[in-house]
Amino acid sequence: MKSPFQLPPDLSINSSPKRALSIMRRIWGGRGVFTCTIGNTLTSTIPGVSDAGDTPELTLFTPAADVELLFHGRTLCMDGLPINPGGIPTPATLTMAALGLSGMAVHVLNGGTKVKPHVPFYDMGGECGQDIRNGRALNNVRQSYEKGVMLGEMFSRDHDFLIASESCAGGTTTALAVMMAMGVLKENLVSSSSPKNPRELKSKIVSEALQAAGIELGGMSDRPLQAMECVGDPTMPANVGLVVGAARKIPVILGGGTQMCAVLAGALAMDKGIEENLLLGTTRWMVNDPNSDICRIVEGIADIPIVSVNMDYGQSPYEGLQAYEWGYIKEGVGCGGSSVASILSTCGHIGCQQLLDRVHQEYRRMLNL
Amino acid sequence: MKSPFQLPPDLSINSSPKRALSIMRRIWGGRGVFTCTIGNTLTSTIPGVSDAGDTPELTLFTPAADVELLFHGRTLCMDGLPINPGGIPTPATLTMAALGLSGMAVHVLNGGTKVKPHVPFYDMGGECGQDIRNGRALNNVRQSYEKGVMLGEMFSRDHDFLIASESCAGGTTTALAVMMAMGVLKENLVSSSSPKNPRELKSKIVSEALQAAGIELGGMSDRPLQAMECVGDPTMPANVGLVVGAARKIPVILGGGTQMCAVLAGALAMDKGIEENLLLGTTRWMVNDPNSDICRIVEGIADIPIVSVNMDYGQSPYEGLQAYEWGYIKEGVGCGGSSVASILSTCGHIGCQQLLDRVHQEYRRMLNL
Repeated sequence: MKSPFQLPPDLSINSSPKRALSIMRRIWGGRGVFTCTIGNTLTSTIPGVSDAGDTPELTLFTPAADVELLFHGRTLCMDGLPINPGGIPTPATLTMAALGLSGMAVHVLNGGTKVKPHVPFYDMGGECGQDIRNGRALNNVRQSYEKGVMLGEMFSRDHDFLIASESCAGGTTTALAVMMAMGVLKENLVSSSSPKNPRELKSKIVSEALQAAGIELGGMSDRPLQAMECVGDPTMPANVGLVVGAARKIPVILGGGTQMCAVLAGALAMDKGIEENLLLGTTRWMVNDPNSDICRIVEGIADIPIVSVNMDYGQSPYEGLQAYEWGYIKEGVGCGGSSVASILSTCGHIGCQQLLDRVHQEYRRMLNL
Repeated sequence: MKSPFQLPPDLSINSSPKRALSIMRRIWGGRGVFTCTIGNTLTSTIPGVSDAGDTPELTLFTPAADVELLFHGRTLCMDGLPINPGGIPTPATLTMAALGLSGMAVHVLNGGTKVKPHVPFYDMGGECGQDIRNGRALNNVRQSYEKGVMLGEMFSRDHDFLIASESCAGGTTTALAVMMAMGVLKENLVSSSSPKNPRELKSKIVSEALQAAGIELGGMSDRPLQAMECVGDPTMPANVGLVVGAARKIPVILGGGTQMCAVLAGALAMDKGIEENLLLGTTRWMVNDPNSDICRIVEGIADIPIVSVNMDYGQSPYEGLQAYEWGYIKEGVGCGGSSVASILSTCGHIGCQQLLDRVHQEYRRMLNL
């Protein structure tokens, strides 16, 4: 018997409250599946673009290492945890906690990577993305999209809801490029895993990318796959397909920050009919980021609810985690979406305190503290 | 509310009745997931070995085409249906019916193929297998096994039971080789998709394979992965892992004929503790085959129940299907296991008549009859 729905105190609704409650009601006590789509784009190796890795080269290892953490609780493709410069640990630490506490299954989609993880993954037919400044970033976007649709439909057969997420360094830059190509975003509002968001550098890269591809602002408003082919990263077409395929039948939580907004825009452009099944699940850190504005980005796309989990690492004894309160990391690997899902699917039996305790436990184990 | 368990009249228990009933009780009314592991072995292109394709070369297309049928209801990698010489359609026609009626999800594992299907599939790290007469058939068996274990564990998190199956032309020959290497089979009792089982040819190939690999009968009794590396096909290590990973927690139906016996032997050699969660689900055609003996093969491995579905194509208006009664095809693509599962998971609401009607409906649609 599941208890009647009530909004858990550890979740906040940041937009579209009526739709938010309707979707949360349908997820309440349900059986969900967590998916993470990984990808590499050489854009992340441009110095200064991405902090999702200790060095520009290591950003290519982060996605594989992240999903290895979800499966094994440790990394195999590299030593130690994926960290930002300064040693701040990947948000996969929170995702691990949410999946571990809720018992939810995780399935990995490989959108296209240079570094492959030592976990089973769905081959979506894509390859590592090129530097978007070439204007020809991706291969096989249609294939990745179609496989995503099939997979989303498949998961919707035996689950009550699905969480889509990503791990792709450089992904906010590619998201900015795709959303500008689609015309849903006119200024640079995307976030960064660094508190010093390198906005000028990202805007410059995106301008060059759009110019190289011959795309004007909004020039590809109804052609999201083509926009991604030119200036996107390889997580995008697979995730767009997955979201479309699943949301035709069940609620889908887009788990992530401004990167997932490009997926949201793409999915709605492919199938407007899924709108009432979409919810963006993220973190308090993302919603409160002074250097980006996810609410305004979503507003420019559609009337989609944003629900955030009120995780607070302010009292954590570990500086690497406290750093989340100083504007580092904020989102990624579906940490917000999986937390929201774990709270809703357990009818509120899981909350921020349990998640925090589990994050600490995993963190100590992984760092031998 | 599910009705209390009673053995459905359309199923027969052929061995180990007590265990059979115990497992069927646990599957009754449950939520299952169907998996199909595909692979190619160049062994199937030796003229005369495999009828799972109109020509020796086409046998390499059969696995991809089979899973395309499960997703799309039509083939994309080739024209028409995969057929045996003479036009007898793939057993995937029955699998489609079972999945269509029950609404069960299907997930495809690519153990290693030359021809890739146009469906999303799990990359298990393997490659197309060599002609086993080389004595070095497979690469990456340990990786495929380990990914299989992880995936099986993952599916067991949110399903009540799992069906493992295969599509791999030439697979009875490789199964014979592996079971002889493991010493669980001492004579050639494996089946064929032809009523004229080319037993002598298969035995000769297996002898050459074992000799080339330097393996004596039973020389690899506790080393199934090594046996597969030498003389197996690429569906095997992935399937062994999948079965082990899932059966540590939930019942697993090994869906298939004598090919799946090699997986059974391998899985039990890797983890004897899973024995009480295993059931072999197959067809009446397989159990009654005068040219093979699945019951004796299983007897030589362990005390595992064999449950068969009593499909009968004798009254079918289509000659291609009637041919199943003349000893063609008999099994494959988990047609028996998925039928058994569809009957049990729906508490007997699905039966042979519904399956037959659906097979006819699909057959007419696909052949424009």
